[in-house]
Amino acid sequence: MTDTNLSAILYKTGDLRLEDRPIPEPGRGEVQISMQKMGICGSDVKYWQKGAIGHFIVVAPMLLGHECAGIVSKLGEGVNNLKVGDRVAIEPGVPCRQCEWCKGGRYNLCPDVFFLATPPDSGALARYHVHAADFCFKLPDNVSFEEGALIEPLSVGLHACQRAGVNLGSKVLVCGAGPIGLSAMLSAKAMGAASICMTDIDDRRLEFARSLGATQTVKVESTDPEEVARQVKSALGGWADQAIECSGAQFSVELGIQSTKPGGAFAVVGHGPDNVTIPITTAIAREVEIRGSFRYVNT
Amino acid sequence: MTDTNLSAILYKTGDLRLEDRPIPEPGRGEVQISMQKMGICGSDVKYWQKGAIGHFIVVAPMLLGHECAGIVSKLGEGVNNLKVGDRVAIEPGVPCRQCEWCKGGRYNLCPDVFFLATPPDSGALARYHVHAADFCFKLPDNVSFEEGALIEPLSVGLHACQRAGVNLGSKVLVCGAGPIGLSAMLSAKAMGAASICMTDIDDRRLEFARSLGATQTVKVESTDPEEVARQVKSALGGWADQAIECSGAQFSVELGIQSTKPGGAFAVVGHGPDNVTIPITTAIAREVEIRGSFRYVNT
Amino acid sequence: MTDTNLSAILYKTGDLRLEDRPIPEPGRGEVQISMQKMGICGSDVKYWQKGAIGHFIVVAPMLLGHECAGIVSKLGEGVNNLKVGDRVAIEPGVPCRQCEWCKGGRYNLCPDVFFLATPPDSGALARYHVHAADFCFKLPDNVSFEEGALIEPLSVGLHACQRAGVNLGSKVLVCGAGPIGLSAMLSAKAMGAASICMTDIDDRRLEFARSLGATQTVKVESTDPEEVARQVKSALGGWADQAIECSGAQFSVELGIQSTKPGGAFAVVGHGPDNVTIPITTAIAREVEIRGSFRYVNT
Amino acid sequence: MTDTNLSAILYKTGDLRLEDRPIPEPGRGEVQISMQKMGICGSDVKYWQKGAIGHFIVVAPMLLGHECAGIVSKLGEGVNNLKVGDRVAIEPGVPCRQCEWCKGGRYNLCPDVFFLATPPDSGALARYHVHAADFCFKLPDNVSFEEGALIEPLSVGLHACQRAGVNLGSKVLVCGAGPIGLSAMLSAKAMGAASICMTDIDDRRLEFARSLGATQTVKVESTDPEEVARQVKSALGGWADQAIECSGAQFSVELGIQSTKPGGAFAVVGHGPDNVTIPITTAIAREVEIRGSFRYVNT
Repeated sequence: MTDTNLSAILYKTGDLRLEDRPIPEPGRGEVQISMQKMGICGSDVKYWQKGAIGHFIVVAPMLLGHECAGIVSKLGEGVNNLKVGDRVAIEPGVPCRQCEWCKGGRYNLCPDVFFLATPPDSGALARYHVHAADFCFKLPDNVSFEEGALIEPLSVGLHACQRAGVNLGSKVLVCGAGPIGLSAMLSAKAMGAASICMTDIDDRRLEFARSLGATQTVKVESTDPEEVARQVKSALGGWADQAIECSGAQFSVELGIQSTKPGGAFAVVGHGPDNVTIPITTAIAREVEIRGSFRYVNT
Repeated sequence: MTDTNLSAILYKTGDLRLEDRPIPEPGRGEVQISMQKMGICGSDVKYWQKGAIGHFIVVAPMLLGHECAGIVSKLGEGVNNLKVGDRVAIEPGVPCRQCEWCKGGRYNLCPDVFFLATPPDSGALARYHVHAADFCFKLPDNVSFEEGALIEPLSVGLHACQRAGVNLGSKVLVCGAGPIGLSAMLSAKAMGAASICMTDIDDRRLEFARSLGATQTVKVESTDPEEVARQVKSALGGWADQAIECSGAQFSVELGIQSTKPGGAFAVVGHGPDNVTIPITTAIAREVEIRGSFRYVNT
Repeated sequence: MTDTNLSAILYKTGDLRLEDRPIPEPGRGEVQISMQKMGICGSDVKYWQKGAIGHFIVVAPMLLGHECAGIVSKLGEGVNNLKVGDRVAIEPGVPCRQCEWCKGGRYNLCPDVFFLATPPDSGALARYHVHAADFCFKLPDNVSFEEGALIEPLSVGLHACQRAGVNLGSKVLVCGAGPIGLSAMLSAKAMGAASICMTDIDDRRLEFARSLGATQTVKVESTDPEEVARQVKSALGGWADQAIECSGAQFSVELGIQSTKPGGAFAVVGHGPDNVTIPITTAIAREVEIRGSFRYVNT
Repeated sequence: MTDTNLSAILYKTGDLRLEDRPIPEPGRGEVQISMQKMGICGSDVKYWQKGAIGHFIVVAPMLLGHECAGIVSKLGEGVNNLKVGDRVAIEPGVPCRQCEWCKGGRYNLCPDVFFLATPPDSGALARYHVHAADFCFKLPDNVSFEEGALIEPLSVGLHACQRAGVNLGSKVLVCGAGPIGLSAMLSAKAMGAASICMTDIDDRRLEFARSLGATQTVKVESTDPEEVARQVKSALGGWADQAIECSGAQFSVELGIQSTKPGGAFAVVGHGPDNVTIPITTAIAREVEIRGSFRYVNT
C-alpha cells in the first residue's frame, strides 16, 4: 500500500493531468478501494476531448473513470458485507436512497444519483477511491480484475434485456454489434433466447458476433427499414418477440419497431440523435412497447 | 319483428344506399340481434367520404357501423349465455381464437380479427345482424340502448388507461379533450386517479372536460412542448405518473413524453400522422415507456 | 415548545411508566417532531399486557406507539422536503436502504428495518420524537392530526388491496369487518371495485361496514367454508376476483381460497394462528395465488 | 395407412380392452393424426387401476392416453398451419375459446376445457385421433416421436418455472426429483438459473438429478422443515429466490415456504393430499407468494 494517490484529473477539454491527491478516508457505510483495473469508456474519451455529453458538461477539475475493480483497503464504520483484502467490482452510481425511485426499486432513475465521472460528479481513476460498501460486489476467485471492470458494460446489456422482457425461447433482434450490442446478445443467450439476430453495417463485427453466439446476422445494406425488417423476420423465422437497439442510429429505431411482433417490446439503449422519427401508427396498431433503457438497476 | 332487413351499404366513396338484405341466420355460438341504437363513429364518416383510413381501404359493397346495441332475436346452436329478448351491447371485433395473441390474452392484436365496418369486414348498420354470442354483453336494466352503443368508445379510453397503468392516487395527463380523451379521463377517475389534467387548443372543450370531472386543464397556446409540459407539471403539482395521448397531434406526443415522470408510462391512442418525431434521448434517460393502445381487450 | 419530553415507557409486562426523557436532536436527514396525536394499536396493548407478539419480545425499557402525527420542530442537516411547522404523518418503519429488498422496491421486507414500538425497536409515544425526514409525510390542510395518525392502519388495508391486485370493476371479498378489514374495503372502493362483500360473525360490524360502503355482507353462521363461499358467490353474482383476509381466522383462509375465481389472488393480512390448513388441491387446480401482505410499502 | 382404428378403451376399473373403432373424420379447424408414440402417464395408470383421481371419475367406456405424437393424416376445412405428413406433438387440452380465461390468456383454467383422458373426456390411445389443428405443434426434424410425446410432461415443469418467475441468475429449490421435478429443473436451467437445489428422500434419484444438471442436492432425512430449509440455504449459499414443489408431500410445502426469500415465489405442482398445513405467519411476514401451477398454457 503506497501512501500517495495518483489521480487522472480533467482540467478542461483536452487537458488531462496526473496529480497526487490526498488519500480519501471511508465514512460510515463506505469502503476505501485500492484500484486495480479500470476500463476507459467512450464517455471518458468524449469528456476529455469535447468537455460534454448532451446535458452533462464537465465541471473541472474532475476525475475520469467509472468501469472499475479493485481491492478493499479500509472499512468505514458499520460495514459488514466486505472485509479488507476483498476483490470487488464497483457499481458506479450511488443513488440518494430517499426519493420515490430509490424506494420504488428503480434507483437508476434517481434524480440525485452520484455517478462516477458524470459531471458534476467526479470519477474513480485514481490509486485510491472511496465508495458506498453496498455498491461494491465481491468478485468470485475465478473472475479477474479485467473481467470485473467489464461487469459495468455487461450490466447495460443485461438491463436492456430485462427491460425488453427476453425469456426462454424468445426470438430477439439486437441492432448494432458494438460492445453494448454484444453484451445484450450474450445476456439474451443466458436468459434462454432461442434465436438472436444481430444487425450492423460492418461485416467483421457481424462475423465476431456470430463467433460469440449470435444465431443469425443481417448486414444492413438498404435504407428502407421495412425491407430490412423482412430480412430480419426471414432470418428469425418470424417476428422478433423482443428487439433491443444499441446502435444509436435513427434507422435502427425504425427497424426495431417494424421487426417486433404485435404486443412485443422494443428496448432502446443506444445514444444517438436527441430526436428520432418513429412509425407511430404501426407502433400503435401493434401495441409494440418502446422502452428506454438507462444504465441498470439491481443487476 | 319485421321480416325485412334494411341496411346502410357503402358502394363507393360518397355513395351510401339503404337496401333491403336477407335476414341473416345465426350459426353455432352466434345470436341474431335486432338492432336498436347505433353510434356513427368518425371512422364511418371517413369511409363514406374518403373510402379509406390508412391501410384499410373500402372493399365495396360494405355495411357501415360498429358502435351498437340491440335485442337478441334468435339463438344459434350451443348458446347459453344469452336468451331471446336480452338487451345487449356488441363488442365489434371477433378474433380468430386460435393465434398466439388470442391464446395469450391480447386478442385485440389478432391479425385475423373480424372487425365490424373495417374493410374488408362489413358492419352492423342494419335491422338485423348476426354476431358471436360471447362478444355480446347483457345491458343492466338501468343502461339504455343509447348508453349501450357508447360502451365501445368508452372501452377505447378504458383500455388506454389500463395500458398506461393508471391506479389509485395517480396524477394523469390526458392530451386532447375529444370523445376518446373524455372517455380516458372518466376511466382514470373511476380507477382512482387523484388528479387528471387535460390539454386541448379549444377552450369550450376544456370547460366541458372540467364539468365532467377533469381536475385541471391547460390550454395549449405555445408551440414548445417543454414549455407546456412545465404548465402541466405546475397544474398537477409534479410529474404525471401516466400520460394518455388522444389528440393525434405530433405536439401532444412530445408533450406526453416531456410531462411523464421517470419510470412512468405514456399510452398513445390518437390516430394522427403515420410518423412522428419523438425526443428519444429524454425518453431513454427517464425510461418513460411509450405504449401504443389499440382498440381494447377484455374490458 | 416545552423543554421536557414526557414519554410512555414499558418497563416490563404490565409496567408502563410516564417519564421525562432528554429531548432528542435530529441527525443528518432527520427531523424532530412535536407529537400531536397517536393511535393506540392492538399491538401496543399486547406488548403492554403480554410482553410479546410472536417472535417479537419486549426488550425493556421501550417506548410504545407507532401510529402518529405531529409538527416538525427542528430540522437535521440536509433536510429539504420539510420545514419547521409542517404538520406530518409518520411512516413508522425506516429500512436499512442498502439490502436487496430496499434496493428492489420492497423495503417492507427489509430484515434490518427499524420499526417503531416493535422490539427491539422503541416507539414514539413521547412529546418529542426524531425520525427520518423522508418517512414523514406532509398532511394537507384539510386532514387533521387524528386523521393523520390513522393513515398507518389505512396503509395496511391499501397495501393488501395492491397485493391482491384490486382494480376497476373488481368483485372483492373482504373477510373480517374490523379496522383493517374496513381499511381494505375503503381502499378497494377507491380503486374502483364494483362490488365488495364483507364477512364477519358480528351483525353490528357488518351493519357498520355497509354504512361505510360495503355493497354486500354475509354473516358467517356455518362452519363449512364451501357453504359460506356459495353464499359469497351468490351475493357477488359470481366468483370474487380478489379476496383479502383480515380476520386472522383459519375459517377465513379456507373461505378466501374457495371464493376466489380461477387465476384470482388472495391476500392474507390477518395475524391469527402460526399455522393454518389450506385446501391446496383446490388452490392448485384454480391457480389461486396466496399472497401474504406485510405492513405496506410506498403507499 | 391402415383402415382400422385399434383403440385402448377403459370399460371399468381394471378392465382395459383393445377394440377396433371407426376412424374419426376431422371437422372444421381439426386434423386427423396417425398416432406414433404415446407416453403412459401416472394418471392413465390410476384411472385404469382405481377408476378415479380426486373429482375426476371415469365415465366408461373412455380411451386413455394424453402424452402423444403422430403424423398428420388428413386436414379438416380451414386448416392452414399444417399439412398431411407433418410430424406433430399434441397439446391435450382444447379449451372452449369463449370464457373469461380463454380470452384472458389463461386457457389452462378454462372450466369447459376438453382434456384428453380426463373424465368425462376420452383419450388418444388409438391408431387415429382427431384434434384441433392449433393444438398440434410441428416437431423439428431432429426431435423424435418419443421426444415429442415427452413434451407434455416437460411443459408441466416449464409452466411451474414460469409461474414461479425463475430468471437469469436465480437460486431455485425444486422439491421432489421425480419426472416433473426433473422437468422443472431442466426448465429452470434453460431459463438461466444460477443454482438449482433438488431435494428427495431417495439417494439414487438425487444422483440422477445431479447427472442431469442439478447443482446441489439435499437428501431429506429430518422431519423438521426448518432444519432442512437451513440445509437448503447452506447448499444454495442463501435463500431460494423461487421454489417449486413437485413431490406432493406436506413436508415439502412447508420446506418450500421456509426456504424461499422474502418477496420470493413458491409454485406448487405436486398433487398430494387435498389439504395441507402451512406456516402462514411466516408466509405473511415474508410475503412469499404461494402459486398453484396447473398443467400449462402457451408453452
